[in-house]
Amino acid sequence: MSSKPPTTAAASPRPENLGVLLREPFRVASARLHERFAERGHPDVRAPHGNVMQFLDDEGTRVSVLAERAQMTKQAMGELVAHLESHGYVERVPDPADRRAKLVRSTAKGNELYAIAREFVAETEAEWTELLGAERMRQLRGILEDLNAGL
Amino acid sequence: MSSKPPTTAAASPRPENLGVLLREPFRVASARLHERFAERGHPDVRAPHGNVMQFLDDEGTRVSVLAERAQMTKQAMGELVAHLESHGYVERVPDPADRRAKLVRSTAKGNELYAIAREFVAETEAEWTELLGAERMRQLRGILEDLNAGL
Repeated sequence: MSSKPPTTAAASPRPENLGVLLREPFRVASARLHERFAERGHPDVRAPHGNVMQFLDDEGTRVSVLAERAQMTKQAMGELVAHLESHGYVERVPDPADRRAKLVRSTAKGNELYAIAREFVAETEAEWTELLGAERMRQLRGILEDLNAGL
Repeated sequence: MSSKPPTTAAASPRPENLGVLLREPFRVASARLHERFAERGHPDVRAPHGNVMQFLDDEGTRVSVLAERAQMTKQAMGELVAHLESHGYVERVPDPADRRAKLVRSTAKGNELYAIAREFVAETEAEWTELLGAERMRQLRGILEDLNAGL
C-alpha cells in the first residue's frame, strides 16, 4: 500500500510517490499481457491469474507460499489456482518434502503462457527504450538492480 | 505477469527482467508497511488488504472497479472489503450516480492507515536515498515519471 490516490483517480491513479511510480508500469504491462493471452487463444487466463503464474517455481509451489508472494489470502489464491487447474494451465502434485502437501506446478499448456510472456516482455522493453532512450533505459535498469540488491 | 522466476526462487524471486525489477521494491515495501500497521495497533489489516486501501478514491469506489484496478476477481475483492468493513476500516455508501450501486469508502479509522502509510513512504524513500545516493534517486524518479507519463 502506498498513500491514497487523489480524488479524481481514474482506472490508473495519478502517480504521487515512488511506490506508485514503480507499481503502475508493472500493472499496466500486466493488463496488456493478459489481453495478449486472449488474442493468442488463452481467454480464460485473465489478469488475476497472473498472481499465480508469475510466482510459480519450476518444481511447483504450495498455495500458501503463492498467497504470501502475491499478497493475497490463501482462499483467494486457492480459487485462482482451481480456475487455472480446471482449464489445464496448472496441476497439483504431491510435495516430495511432505506427502500430505501439494505443489502447484505449470503444465505444458501453462508453459505456452511463459513463451508468450517472454516475447511480450521483450516487446515492452523495446517500447520503453523508444520512449526513454537507450541511455536512460540503461540507467533505469542499473538503478533498479542496485535497489533490488539492497532490499 | 512477467516471465517465470528461476527454480531456486525464494519468497522474493531473483529479478530477471525490468518488470520484476519494478515489482519487487513495491512488493517488499508493501509487506513491510503491513508489519508497521500491526505494530501501530492495526493487526487485522494484512498485506492482501492493501489491494483495497491503495485503490480507494476519496469519494468511494465500486467493488468491481477496485477488482479491476487490483487485478483481482470481484469475488476475492468482495471478501477483502467485507473483512475491512467488519473491522471498521471501510464502509459502503450508496453511489450517487446509481442508487442501486454501492461505493466502498474509507472511514476515519481507515484514514489512520493512510497517515501511517505517508510516514512509512517518507521513511522508505529516505532509506532508498541512503542506498542509492541522492543523484541516482533523483534520476530514478525522473525516469519513472517519464515512463508513467508515456504509458
